[in-house]
Amino acid sequence: MARIVMKFGGTSVADLDRIRNVAARVKREVEAGHEVAVVVSAMAGVTNQLVAWCQALSPLHDAREYDAVVATGEQVTSGLLAIALQEIGVEARSWQGWQIPILTDGAHGRARILEIRADELIRRLQTLGQVPVVCGFQGLGPDGRITTLGRGGSDTSAVALAAALKADRCDIYTDVEGVFTTDPRIVAKARKLDKITYEEMLELASVGAKVLQTRSVELAMKEKVRIQVLSSFTDAPGTLVVDEDEIVEKEIVSGIAYSRDEAKVTVRKVPDRPGIAAAIFGPLAEAGINVDMIVQNVAADGTTDLTFTVAKADLPRTEAKLAEIKETIGYAEITTDADVAKVSVVGVGMRSHAGVASTMFRALAEKAINIQVITTSEIKVSVLIGAEYTELAVRALHTAYGLDAG
Amino acid sequence: MARIVMKFGGTSVADLDRIRNVAARVKREVEAGHEVAVVVSAMAGVTNQLVAWCQALSPLHDAREYDAVVATGEQVTSGLLAIALQEIGVEARSWQGWQIPILTDGAHGRARILEIRADELIRRLQTLGQVPVVCGFQGLGPDGRITTLGRGGSDTSAVALAAALKADRCDIYTDVEGVFTTDPRIVAKARKLDKITYEEMLELASVGAKVLQTRSVELAMKEKVRIQVLSSFTDAPGTLVVDEDEIVEKEIVSGIAYSRDEAKVTVRKVPDRPGIAAAIFGPLAEAGINVDMIVQNVAADGTTDLTFTVAKADLPRTEAKLAEIKETIGYAEITTDADVAKVSVVGVGMRSHAGVASTMFRALAEKAINIQVITTSEIKVSVLIGAEYTELAVRALHTAYGLDAG
Repeated sequence: MARIVMKFGGTSVADLDRIRNVAARVKREVEAGHEVAVVVSAMAGVTNQLVAWCQALSPLHDAREYDAVVATGEQVTSGLLAIALQEIGVEARSWQGWQIPILTDGAHGRARILEIRADELIRRLQTLGQVPVVCGFQGLGPDGRITTLGRGGSDTSAVALAAALKADRCDIYTDVEGVFTTDPRIVAKARKLDKITYEEMLELASVGAKVLQTRSVELAMKEKVRIQVLSSFTDAPGTLVVDEDEIVEKEIVSGIAYSRDEAKVTVRKVPDRPGIAAAIFGPLAEAGINVDMIVQNVAADGTTDLTFTVAKADLPRTEAKLAEIKETIGYAEITTDADVAKVSVVGVGMRSHAGVASTMFRALAEKAINIQVITTSEIKVSVLIGAEYTELAVRALHTAYGLDAG
Repeated sequence: MARIVMKFGGTSVADLDRIRNVAARVKREVEAGHEVAVVVSAMAGVTNQLVAWCQALSPLHDAREYDAVVATGEQVTSGLLAIALQEIGVEARSWQGWQIPILTDGAHGRARILEIRADELIRRLQTLGQVPVVCGFQGLGPDGRITTLGRGGSDTSAVALAAALKADRCDIYTDVEGVFTTDPRIVAKARKLDKITYEEMLELASVGAKVLQTRSVELAMKEKVRIQVLSSFTDAPGTLVVDEDEIVEKEIVSGIAYSRDEAKVTVRKVPDRPGIAAAIFGPLAEAGINVDMIVQNVAADGTTDLTFTVAKADLPRTEAKLAEIKETIGYAEITTDADVAKVSVVGVGMRSHAGVASTMFRALAEKAINIQVITTSEIKVSVLIGAEYTELAVRALHTAYGLDAG
């Protein structure tokens, strides 16, 4: 007997038939003797509709009212699923965030969970065998009002609930069968991974493999919650996201990720003096612009070139900000390029294996793909290349690291 | 300066444009110097959709889950209206039933309001000039879960809030301009009434003039809340529903109502002994069947005929119940007729005027309409006639009592 949190995303509860299908899956786990808690998202499309209404009434709407409006999507699903479960003989009840309560901070629209008071849920799991059907994405703020966690927040709700319930596993049901070695739309031979570490999952998520919300993975890593990502439409086993210790045979490289959402900015002939990086990146950070890759060449003639990437949507604001501080910094010029892609090789195994980066560079060179920027972390090597080479590079790397399905 | 509760029904908040229109109306009252609280229904059609989903998943669904699901409609509207109000510079915030709280009994799906703890709303009205936008139709049960008040319950929410706030008036905005002397679809010359008493409103509502939920009028009468019924689509003044004392010039007859929702049942040759009525109507009441008109003729040959009406939908169950108790009662036979209509003449003035009923009988006789059953109350005379004569009877009576618009 295990205690399991099952989380179902919007496409898994998109209509009544799918809600019935979810109920049947929950019943199967209950009948297998497990203690089951469920977390649900809004029916697909509902949240978008509610957000659009708020936007249409006021582009700068009160985030507290926005939260009250958009949190209703999950409330509907949890009630409907509780009814569907009862109909097939499973003891169940819905729980809104304020009822449990799921306490969050006061950052409406992007709140963080502080505490889940799960005593009553545990009591009912143990004594009644009652399945709690919990509204994802929402909580109760210190002002006594409904908060929401930001898009994709239901994953975080599920992981936080699993931690609070000391669950053995948190199953995240979605519309894909798990985490793949790369995007199957680009590489037909992409393989589903059986296991992946939290760190790898984070690196893959942050470079565009949007299976799980980043924050939910961070929380799972911190709280040691074992996550399983799997499809609600098939019975295939999914991908386990676990602690590195749980993986005996570590792959050197687990996956290839890519992102076309970046733009490159080069600040030319920056005076090479201490504090110059802070003088450039400080104002950008204050303007809420996230800088990703950063490289600085060694100086020549007392000046240096600084290259970095920002989200494409932030490029105009970045250019404006840099123009503003041109006098203070004293650089020569700015060049930008939005026609770039970041391709990354991710794997915890590279900590103990040399030559991972050189395999990458060689594979790209063989396809005559020019590398514009390189950055590395402990478990990731990323390169910036021309956007037109994205698919070619991903396929070449997938083969070079032996990831192609047999 | 007055304190006003404004209540907007589903058609008044059916889309974003109408919500903006409602916001403009609220702003007008605020700018006139009034303290304003708002109660909203769900956007038209939303509640029906949510109810249909619950029904489809389980015809005998858990009423507590039903409440959690259907209460979301009002939550969406209240948040959206608060945003729309803020957008045009009116200080506002949404309130769900559990936040105020609006405490109800535990009868999920048809709960009754026990208490509204309105201190914080009053404080905000007085010190911040903040408009509370309250979710109608919902409250918080003793089990800590969301309750709903039954269809049309938002009217009751509004009246209860007006009582709790000690408001000077409760304005019920709807899609008609007020209460009419009769159904304008039948009588083109029907007039809008400027004022009507609670008692008259109750009699009109209970015989099919569905402008206000009956319970809301009972509550208003008990709490002495002045109601105004008016349209959210025009600027015409509506109908005031007030205490009899407030009406100086009392009309003898205020309106003609009708209902095609009744069926006639006659129990023939019932032994004429004490307790026989109880023996028949007791079992019907236990089966949840509401009996409306009842007449019993004087006995002949030691037996009597008992005639009464029930809602058309209850007719099959009534027949079954009567068959069940045939042995015990010892009647001869049952005859039923679903093809009947009840037409009523309503007016507080008839208390002090004789001849109201005879005017009615004469008017019907002139049109050769046969009267099957007659019942009278202090302020109402009702007759049961063949359904095909409904319009003819209503028009004849409207003219006979001098109600036609000039």
